[in-house]
Amino acid sequence: MKFLRYFLIFIPISIIAELIHLSPIMLFVISSLAIVPLAGVMGEATEEISFYSGPRIGGFLNATFGNATELIIAFFALKAGLFDVVKASIAGSVIGNILLVLGASMFLGGCKYKIQKFNKNVVETSSSMLLFAIIGLSIPAIFTHTIKNDLLTQKYEWLSVGIAIAMFIIYILGLFFSFYTHKDLYGSEHTEDGEAKWSLKKSVIVLILATVAIAFESEILVSSVEPMTEAIGLSEFFVGIILIPIIGNAAEHSTAIIMAMKNKMDVAIEIAIGSSLQIILFVAPILVFLSLLFKPMSIVFNEFELVALIVSVLIANRVASDGESNWLEGIQLIAVYIIIAISFLI
Amino acid sequence: MKFLRYFLIFIPISIIAELIHLSPIMLFVISSLAIVPLAGVMGEATEEISFYSGPRIGGFLNATFGNATELIIAFFALKAGLFDVVKASIAGSVIGNILLVLGASMFLGGCKYKIQKFNKNVVETSSSMLLFAIIGLSIPAIFTHTIKNDLLTQKYEWLSVGIAIAMFIIYILGLFFSFYTHKDLYGSEHTEDGEAKWSLKKSVIVLILATVAIAFESEILVSSVEPMTEAIGLSEFFVGIILIPIIGNAAEHSTAIIMAMKNKMDVAIEIAIGSSLQIILFVAPILVFLSLLFKPMSIVFNEFELVALIVSVLIANRVASDGESNWLEGIQLIAVYIIIAISFLI
Amino acid sequence: MKFLRYFLIFIPISIIAELIHLSPIMLFVISSLAIVPLAGVMGEATEEISFYSGPRIGGFLNATFGNATELIIAFFALKAGLFDVVKASIAGSVIGNILLVLGASMFLGGCKYKIQKFNKNVVETSSSMLLFAIIGLSIPAIFTHTIKNDLLTQKYEWLSVGIAIAMFIIYILGLFFSFYTHKDLYGSEHTEDGEAKWSLKKSVIVLILATVAIAFESEILVSSVEPMTEAIGLSEFFVGIILIPIIGNAAEHSTAIIMAMKNKMDVAIEIAIGSSLQIILFVAPILVFLSLLFKPMSIVFNEFELVALIVSVLIANRVASDGESNWLEGIQLIAVYIIIAISFLI
Repeated sequence: MKFLRYFLIFIPISIIAELIHLSPIMLFVISSLAIVPLAGVMGEATEEISFYSGPRIGGFLNATFGNATELIIAFFALKAGLFDVVKASIAGSVIGNILLVLGASMFLGGCKYKIQKFNKNVVETSSSMLLFAIIGLSIPAIFTHTIKNDLLTQKYEWLSVGIAIAMFIIYILGLFFSFYTHKDLYGSEHTEDGEAKWSLKKSVIVLILATVAIAFESEILVSSVEPMTEAIGLSEFFVGIILIPIIGNAAEHSTAIIMAMKNKMDVAIEIAIGSSLQIILFVAPILVFLSLLFKPMSIVFNEFELVALIVSVLIANRVASDGESNWLEGIQLIAVYIIIAISFLI
Repeated sequence: MKFLRYFLIFIPISIIAELIHLSPIMLFVISSLAIVPLAGVMGEATEEISFYSGPRIGGFLNATFGNATELIIAFFALKAGLFDVVKASIAGSVIGNILLVLGASMFLGGCKYKIQKFNKNVVETSSSMLLFAIIGLSIPAIFTHTIKNDLLTQKYEWLSVGIAIAMFIIYILGLFFSFYTHKDLYGSEHTEDGEAKWSLKKSVIVLILATVAIAFESEILVSSVEPMTEAIGLSEFFVGIILIPIIGNAAEHSTAIIMAMKNKMDVAIEIAIGSSLQIILFVAPILVFLSLLFKPMSIVFNEFELVALIVSVLIANRVASDGESNWLEGIQLIAVYIIIAISFLI
Repeated sequence: MKFLRYFLIFIPISIIAELIHLSPIMLFVISSLAIVPLAGVMGEATEEISFYSGPRIGGFLNATFGNATELIIAFFALKAGLFDVVKASIAGSVIGNILLVLGASMFLGGCKYKIQKFNKNVVETSSSMLLFAIIGLSIPAIFTHTIKNDLLTQKYEWLSVGIAIAMFIIYILGLFFSFYTHKDLYGSEHTEDGEAKWSLKKSVIVLILATVAIAFESEILVSSVEPMTEAIGLSEFFVGIILIPIIGNAAEHSTAIIMAMKNKMDVAIEIAIGSSLQIILFVAPILVFLSLLFKPMSIVFNEFELVALIVSVLIANRVASDGESNWLEGIQLIAVYIIIAISFLI
């Protein structure tokens, strides 16, 4: 999506907008438009570095920086004490990846190719890992909502830390699994790397610059959330679960769709499910750990988020067990996403 | 099930019963017994017409008129303001199709054939479509029951219309998928059509007469529900979820069981799952649209219905992913149906 | 696990401990340590008897006595009126079998063998039966918790008896299925029986002695639960759902793990899922029937147990549909178990 580059113009615009105190809505829109291409640049720089570092460390870098944009946005939301926005954006990323990205990939790919097959063994490893991750994450939440309502905010903070540690360990073990003990399962993908376009030095500088710029824009974005939602009567929750994930993942999403349209459905699905997995096992625990710097954030999702998460993961597993996709399946996923979004809206 | 024809005698009996003001229980029983063979006649007439219209329009006709009986009964219940009965009968049709009809097919077929195999690819398309449909339909209901309890009847009416439109679009796209872009997937089934027994004129006349007669009997049936439930202490809810679906689908159900006993398990499963799909994506939206003529009906199911629906669909997906069936699986499905029915009864 | 034999020394120790009125905690620990090897001896004796009785009755014996230890412990808990402990131990056995035993089997087996394959057809029959069983069992509980809260303890006792009868019938039909109409599906396993080591007379005497000793130790164990939980501030519920199942199933569990480490993953999974099935379809109904001797026990699980049960069964079905396992899957199952255990603890 080369044309996204032109959106980099929104970086200077956002600086000016901030200086002249534009309305929060405008600030939100402009900083969003600046983040989209920056996330793409960051992804590209990471990929370039991975050429120099060899496939193993490269894979690790890709896996770690893949959701860096989201992590940065969530960090500023955390700092601003917008816990509901943070949690909603975690749930929203998973939902968006599975329903919207996978749906759009299957629909657009399916319009071009009648039936798109993918290697369901590779997808099944990720989708079953996702199932376990969501189950682990949901259990305390389900208990909280069914019985222990009054204890919600107190006892559950240290349980959240415990679960975050467990998730993080599973994440590390998962990397160990895919890059060490069972790396041959994923072999073909990691080798067809092509060639580096940038020098290592350039890549590192670009990565650092993009990170700084994203941090700057995220701060503008997050600080505009509260006044904006008040001004136009939107819930912060809707911003967290629908808008922020779309902004943070736009670059990545376009890659998945492009892959699907090249009939590489394996890669498209792996991006969508792999990214969800990373959000749950890496981004969410890191945010819990970071929250200890400010005010401990429990990782207990509300019922809305839980239902949406569980539904998404069930669908991901259903889709993965199939081994093929078509345009109708894509439409159905998008329809479920739209219904969820509307339900959150009202 | 030729002998069902003799039940047509209940049409004149019901007229007399109505005239001499028999008790509501008798009216309910008699009109039910009249509807069963009429639904069969309607199905036959539709099939005859499809010989003349060619496979594509024929498939469309079958898909549309397959649940006409249910639609007519529900229409009169809607007109009488019995919203709970309408919604219960929608849920009950899905549950009955999947647990009772599929269970009976698998049990009776399995008693004759040790293991019955079916093409799981064809079944998987329908069962995964059913999963998405139920998920889409359940989301607002789950949200309603977990948080927004107080808003139940107000804001949700227009959301219901929105979801009904989405469902209906998916239904149309599904027809487009199966009769146009991917018709070869279903090819074998649609071609083995045999020959027309009736002339086109006769078929059309029979179809119209059957529709009128069903409408007449449905009005008697629905008007007897309230006094009957009061008289014998049964809940209207039980009538809606268990009795009406059995009455409305009896003819169709017997076809599925006959197919299973001929070892055509594919057809039996396709009837059960396809009919459920049609209820959710076609009958339910039509009823929401029709309700706008009287008093808007929200499509929010209660927890009972939700649990039963989700359970049924999970089972349908489990069964479909298997590719074979035996008598024990049939018994288990029937057992789950009986447990649900008893739970609704008390 | 030959060394478990030495634990038999805890039988005389427990008698002395009871006589000198040791603290409840010590009594709980000592009687637990005595039950572990006794359960192993009982299993061995049952297996020996099955050599003499032929494969069909032998299979039936194994299926019936496989969870005898649990049944005996639960019986004494029932007699003591500890209904919550009984129900928790039923749920805990299923959870422990699927998450802990299967997890440990997959992890330890997976450390030795990169990928362990198993015949998914055999496993699917059990896992889908487990799905139906749990669904049947959960329906009244779900209804109870969502709407009919006030009726909880009254009307639901006779419904529980009804469901217990249904479960028991399915159990008998399941035996009929696996040892009569479809015995060839399971053929290979039941024939590789080896040779009897003990005489029939010795086997029967050992079985009777082990049963008596387990009954004796169970009475000590159960009578120490209440004072122990009070003394150390643990909930009875935690004892029921985590500790008792581990004690009752330790011998069986070690067999599953040993099988996994011999790369016989089919057998390991069949033990874990088969044992869960037996708990739900055989042990639970028997306990409901036995409760009629004292005070009727309803079989309605609380939300904690329901969530844990449903999660476990979904995971079992996911794992079974895969056909292979690795160490990472094992770790994930264990992690879910630990998260559940911690959530119950706080």
